[in-house]
Formats: sequence, structure tokens, C-alpha cells
Amino acid sequence: MQHYPESIRSLIRHLSKLPGVGEKTAERLAIHILRKSMRDAQALANSIVEMKQKIKLCNMCYALSDAERCQICANTSRDRSLLCVVEQPADMVSLEKSGAFKGLYHILGGALAPMEGIGPQELRMKALFDRVDRGGISEVIIATGTSVEGESTAAYIAQQLAGSAVKASRIASGVPVGGDLKYVDQMTLRCALEGRHDI
Amino acid sequence: MQHYPESIRSLIRHLSKLPGVGEKTAERLAIHILRKSMRDAQALANSIVEMKQKIKLCNMCYALSDAERCQICANTSRDRSLLCVVEQPADMVSLEKSGAFKGLYHILGGALAPMEGIGPQELRMKALFDRVDRGGISEVIIATGTSVEGESTAAYIAQQLAGSAVKASRIASGVPVGGDLKYVDQMTLRCALEGRHDI
Repeated sequence: MQHYPESIRSLIRHLSKLPGVGEKTAERLAIHILRKSMRDAQALANSIVEMKQKIKLCNMCYALSDAERCQICANTSRDRSLLCVVEQPADMVSLEKSGAFKGLYHILGGALAPMEGIGPQELRMKALFDRVDRGGISEVIIATGTSVEGESTAAYIAQQLAGSAVKASRIASGVPVGGDLKYVDQMTLRCALEGRHDI
Repeated sequence: MQHYPESIRSLIRHLSKLPGVGEKTAERLAIHILRKSMRDAQALANSIVEMKQKIKLCNMCYALSDAERCQICANTSRDRSLLCVVEQPADMVSLEKSGAFKGLYHILGGALAPMEGIGPQELRMKALFDRVDRGGISEVIIATGTSVEGESTAAYIAQQLAGSAVKASRIASGVPVGGDLKYVDQMTLRCALEGRHDI
């Protein structure tokens, strides 16, 4: 890398901080950008800064959004009586890609992890229960991860909602579709058996 | 991707134009940049634009450079009697990494390809022969590629230099170091046999 001029070295250094981009790949990307027109390079640079400037969190569900309210919360055709609780914005995107959910979301911003000092106050728990208290929600679907933290977060939410008129449910754990049983871990198989249903 | 706000989608589109970056990778990179500080994002964006603005070609060897003259041409400790001719700046960087050459370079900007309309006028051939004519060079090492175009470019340069006081040489073709003979193609083996030397 020291054989390149400083301005190229500087870009290589910045690019190699990106995930999955080593020095070799960063070098290839830098040379590619160098060969492109100034307009293309400027467009890439602008889109980086513009995204950072524009993106805020939706004031209702805390999803990534260009506006005060995200596209989903602003969409009047979504079922406002269903609320799906997830850990991160990326989880919401995955669920949206599945197309299986037509309600609204609530993004916690993580999962409970007392060992790392993450309690209910560090997450958007109060905002969640406030939303539920405001009424209009019939079911809270807890779609936090299936890690220990995700499970304990789900248990905490279910516990807080117990006794209220709102139903709490948890997404199913089991064998992934297309999965081969011999490659599925024991905990997942146990969940799949416990969660069996009539056919 | 349509589940992201427009400013993220825009960055994903721009990133996925980079070589080896698909939409999935671009999404991961965009989310990574989003999580970083505004300062880091700005630094990355600036380094892209700065590189495009600063990089010019060395007025002597046509290497990528931040200044009028590149680091190698400006380095008085290099052997100015040896001139290595390569196709592209990246070839020069590879040779520099090997540390085996201490002379100066001349970057042609490509190889002769009459079928694609690339003749001597399209390359920096005149600049090369002008450098040789100015004197002080004892040997021109032709390190163009070993493709048909690279070989014909080498033959053309050797032909033009024939009769002059300057020696023309060609880098050796043969079995790569660490290479297994059974995986080496026939043309390379033929070159390796023809280029054999006493030990």
C-alpha cells in the first residue's frame, strides 16, 4: 500500500474499516473509484453524508426513517391493532421482507442483558407499555431473538403485559423451512417438538 | 431493500456499483456506516472526493501521483539508467511490492490492441521513445503482460529500440514460484523450458 500516493492510501485506510473489507479489497475499491468519473465519486460521497444527515428514528416505532414518522407507521392500511416487538431495525426489515406481517412494529433497540448493564431503562420498554396503555392494540407479538437475552426480554414483556386486556404472543421456534433435521441443533429440535401442532 | 428509507436505499444503490459488492453486501456496509459517527462517515466521504481531486499522473512516468512528479521519479536514490515499461499503474505497484527493481518506470496506459483500435498513438509510446532519446538510459526492461496484446506490445517496443544504443530486455516467463508443475498450463511450461538457464 505504501506504493500508492497519500490520497489513495487515505481512502484505502477508510474503506478497510468497513466490515468484510480487507486491505486488498479496499485497494481494489479505491482504484475502481479512481477510474470512475468525478460525478460518480461525488454521488457516492454525497449519499454517505446525506444518509447520515437525514436518517432519524420514527417517533412512534423507532424504525430508521427519513421523516418524523416511518413509512409503516404512516401507512393507514396497516393493521394498527397488531404490534410486533423486535430488537433492531434490521429485524423489522427481515420481517417486512417475509411479507407475513401487516401490523405495526416497536423497536426496542436491543435485548435485556443485565451482565452488560442493559436493563429495561436502557431499552424502549416504557415507550412500548405507553403505546399499549394508549389503547387500540389487541395483540403484542414478541419477535425478539431466540438467544438467552432475546428469550428473557420476551419473558419480561409477557410478564409486564400479564393481567392487561392485551394478548401477548411469541413467534414460533422450530426447524427452519428447507432445513435438514440432521443438521438442526438439539435445542431447536426440542422447541420444534414442544411447539408441534395438529395437521 | 424497499423496506429502507430512501436515503439508505440511495447509498445501497451507489455502493452496489462497486466491484464485488452485491446488494446484500451494500446493505451491510450502509447499515455499518449508519451506525458510525457522523465524523467517520464524513471522513470516508471526504477521502473519496479528495482522492479524485488530488490524483494526477506523474509528468515523467505517468504513475498515479498527488504531485507533478511521483515519489519514484522524485527519488534521487533510484537507478535512473534502468527504465521498466509496464501497462498500468497497478503493474508498477506490483513490481514495487516485489522490491526487486530500483530503477524508474514508464506506464504505457495499456497494450497494443489493433482490433480494439488501440495503436501506438493511443498509448504513451512517443513519450517513452522521447525519454530514451533524451539519453541516460542504458536498459529498457519491458514488463508488459504475457497476453497476446502484452507480447505484441513488447515486440513493438523492442523493434523500435533495435539499432539504438539502449538495450531492450523482457521479463522472464515461466513456472510461478511455489507452483505445482501439474497445474501449470502448456504455454507457460514451454516458456519455462525455452528460458532455462544453467545452475
